[in-house]
Amino acid sequence: MSTTAERDRVPKQDRSRATRQRLLEAAVACLAEHGWAGSTVAVVAERAGVSRGAAQHHFPTREDLFTAAVEYVAEERSTALRALFPEGAADRRAVLAALVDLYTGPLFRAALHLWVAASNEDQLGSRVTELEARVGRETHRIAVDLLGADESRPGVRETVQGFLDMARGLGLANLLTDDTARRERVVAQWAALLEEALG
Amino acid sequence: MSTTAERDRVPKQDRSRATRQRLLEAAVACLAEHGWAGSTVAVVAERAGVSRGAAQHHFPTREDLFTAAVEYVAEERSTALRALFPEGAADRRAVLAALVDLYTGPLFRAALHLWVAASNEDQLGSRVTELEARVGRETHRIAVDLLGADESRPGVRETVQGFLDMARGLGLANLLTDDTARRERVVAQWAALLEEALG
Repeated sequence: MSTTAERDRVPKQDRSRATRQRLLEAAVACLAEHGWAGSTVAVVAERAGVSRGAAQHHFPTREDLFTAAVEYVAEERSTALRALFPEGAADRRAVLAALVDLYTGPLFRAALHLWVAASNEDQLGSRVTELEARVGRETHRIAVDLLGADESRPGVRETVQGFLDMARGLGLANLLTDDTARRERVVAQWAALLEEALG
Repeated sequence: MSTTAERDRVPKQDRSRATRQRLLEAAVACLAEHGWAGSTVAVVAERAGVSRGAAQHHFPTREDLFTAAVEYVAEERSTALRALFPEGAADRRAVLAALVDLYTGPLFRAALHLWVAASNEDQLGSRVTELEARVGRETHRIAVDLLGADESRPGVRETVQGFLDMARGLGLANLLTDDTARRERVVAQWAALLEEALG
């Protein structure tokens, strides 16, 4: 391969990656705002400023685009969460609050739309079930690491799982109204319960 | 009013109430199975074996039918839950399990579809927000009563609220796959922690 061809190839890959990223971010924003019924590849392409053809080159089907988008943004959030606490369980209460924050933003809203749509659409169902399991496992792993939870002790695994279920429920309670004030009181109380339970 | 007219009037009211009830139950089942997009007044009327006109006589709009349906079934579930524990907090663990059960059946699935649809539809939004607040308050009241929780003690209110948020999150985790085995372990562990927290 000539030097010129190599020079041309790299920026092209960069451009392609940037396009893909814009599509993924636009897809999550679109899903959060308009729900599954209002989220088509065409709507997302327009929002991302990308041609419909380019969008379909990256994501052949609507299912490909939206499951990839929720996974991509979930990974971004996980990386950001780990970066917030590079030393691990310095302040458990802050870690718990940050975990709950995972479930109160546009990503959770987008994921919720995708899950609910998947519960009635077979084609989407198996894809989203797999995705949910992967994202759930990763979130559990992060929670255990950042909380410094010792899962070899009986009950600790279920304690952490239950807390993440609570966080998900708090996200749901925030869907229609701003539930911040109540949520902060609940998290403060449960942080105290967890502090005792995790030792 | 003549005696004959009175005799005729009572069965008519009964018939009307029975029709209304069939419509409400069919609406919840339909919402749970097909989601908001697939749930129209016509589909529900057919499922209930009621004419479209009769359905519209009882519920002038689609929003009327589905919000009334979720509220009706939620009330039925609340009444059934109280009846399960006529003596109150005999067995806290059984009460906690029964509270979690509220969020794993067709009613929760139907309510979830309605909430998610309401988050993108203004017309439905305010109706469902009010409904969610009413049902949420009632569920909290039942939980406090059945658990024998003393809300005058600091933190007890938030402990109960957090548990109900956890129950809602467990319901969400059960949407795409049967999460029963994991859920039972989580509930067992948190029942032990809550026993301590509630005293």
